[in-house]
Amino acid sequence: MKALYFDGELSLRDLPVPQPRPGEALIRMSHAGICNTDLEIIQGYMGFRGVLGHEFVGQVEACDDSSWIGKRVVGEINLPCGQCEFCRSGMGNHCPTRTVLGIHNKDGAFAEYLTLPLKNLHPVPDSVSDLDAVFTEPLAAALEILEQVPVKKFKQCVVLGDGKLGQLIARVLKPHCPGLTVVGKHEPKLALLRQAGIATQSLEEISGRLPTPADKPDLVIEATGSPAGLGLALQLIRPRGTIVLKSTFHGQAPLNLTPVVVDEVTLIGSRCGPFAKALDLLASGRLDLKPLISRVMPLEQGPQAMKQAGERETLKIILEG
Amino acid sequence: MKALYFDGELSLRDLPVPQPRPGEALIRMSHAGICNTDLEIIQGYMGFRGVLGHEFVGQVEACDDSSWIGKRVVGEINLPCGQCEFCRSGMGNHCPTRTVLGIHNKDGAFAEYLTLPLKNLHPVPDSVSDLDAVFTEPLAAALEILEQVPVKKFKQCVVLGDGKLGQLIARVLKPHCPGLTVVGKHEPKLALLRQAGIATQSLEEISGRLPTPADKPDLVIEATGSPAGLGLALQLIRPRGTIVLKSTFHGQAPLNLTPVVVDEVTLIGSRCGPFAKALDLLASGRLDLKPLISRVMPLEQGPQAMKQAGERETLKIILEG
Repeated sequence: MKALYFDGELSLRDLPVPQPRPGEALIRMSHAGICNTDLEIIQGYMGFRGVLGHEFVGQVEACDDSSWIGKRVVGEINLPCGQCEFCRSGMGNHCPTRTVLGIHNKDGAFAEYLTLPLKNLHPVPDSVSDLDAVFTEPLAAALEILEQVPVKKFKQCVVLGDGKLGQLIARVLKPHCPGLTVVGKHEPKLALLRQAGIATQSLEEISGRLPTPADKPDLVIEATGSPAGLGLALQLIRPRGTIVLKSTFHGQAPLNLTPVVVDEVTLIGSRCGPFAKALDLLASGRLDLKPLISRVMPLEQGPQAMKQAGERETLKIILEG
Repeated sequence: MKALYFDGELSLRDLPVPQPRPGEALIRMSHAGICNTDLEIIQGYMGFRGVLGHEFVGQVEACDDSSWIGKRVVGEINLPCGQCEFCRSGMGNHCPTRTVLGIHNKDGAFAEYLTLPLKNLHPVPDSVSDLDAVFTEPLAAALEILEQVPVKKFKQCVVLGDGKLGQLIARVLKPHCPGLTVVGKHEPKLALLRQAGIATQSLEEISGRLPTPADKPDLVIEATGSPAGLGLALQLIRPRGTIVLKSTFHGQAPLNLTPVVVDEVTLIGSRCGPFAKALDLLASGRLDLKPLISRVMPLEQGPQAMKQAGERETLKIILEG
């Protein structure tokens, strides 16, 4: 099968079709989304070697339980051991020996076929198109914020970042945060947000004129994907405010967390979220995600697609299986 | 009057006695403690110029309200404007135009005299000695953790740092955290903690053999005063655990907060705390702070005292007015 493989170099390879283990499904990928994490991995993040990709929708072709065969599915990306203290207490996503689809010790979804345990799979409602379903994983990650933070209690929320994840987060938070603003540096991406009824501010504008203390937001979501994002978040946040951290990246950046101490700020790291709620939201039809798709490209063009995904003006690139 | 002054250089100076404004008291300093923040200030922290010192006990010599004259007092270090939205909502310690005793735009306590608003003052109970009372401010900062975090809900707590603040924090947390361990790198300081019934581990030991995932603490208090402290805290903390940040310092350190995101860790900055509770705790006699005093030195020896306070084996140096 064709697969987009990374071993220090990114290339399209011809690999054997993976064999599902007992309890696992063989899934034929129909669509897969390129995430910032994929771009970080090829910079060295996680030291991953293998088939990239963790956002996908596909069809079950083989597994022990015949009731799954032919089902259109999305899949949770963490493969926990199921035995340890974390797994037993419902924290499988934090299982210390977990593998992670396309991120850690487990071949991913940028391939004709992938395998995942049946317990990771969620059937996709018929009303949800493939091109929407491929957003399930990042949408769940955006919804995780609602699981962690009582967002309705905050007066003013700023989302930093107008990229793929920032766009989803803003759309997810909008009904819960009347005082929501997205700060970004790409005018066309900010325009998409305004079309969705979300207030925006350019990075240049806010950096040149920081809000007065009384106007500072009490909730900032850092989704820039850049090491500089937290520095700005710390300049913006109101004393005793909360910053949700969504960005993961390779390498270190100079930082001083003294403002966290002086202003008694709370920082909350936020990662994977609830797939079922993401699918419900997609099925509700309340989100129009088409404007977020920059391009759909065949899997064979994977290397070019990854290159384009890293370009400034691009939002979501979707690979077609 | 004699005062320990910093203007890029540290020196003992002869300065005019400060004049209390309406609502302020003139206080004759009897004892003042050297804090790590003082040592950071002479490295450039806060860009402060003036008389150093914010931990003190003294006697009111002059003020509008004669009932205060002669009283032995300690004083809260933040001088809020009293007018702004933060002040009106009980967050005066976060008033954006506040000055801070010996730290920001307000001469401090390493002098024969200082001034503070009467509303900042707390009379010291007769049962509390001067040498205990001088710990009120850092003890309040330690108690702030109990105001912010439901420590009893955590199974295992590690305090990073066996210095002045770590010692106080450990003593404050002990009755609330059965699974408390202090990690430090100075055996004599760790020995003091063990004498107070607190479990300890050397930095070398824990760095060489990090706890297994199941044994990781779910609460870590970072009180090393060093930029490296947070890195170790992130290695130690259990997924979805909480790290309380107490260290403030000058300059930046290379850092990557990706583990905060991946492990969905909560970081909480923690600064000044409740003076009244600190005085109650001192009055209860439950703390024996004498072992934490390395030396009491006359104010005239301020520069030497600051030098000694920065030495590895030193705990609290107290200046005598």
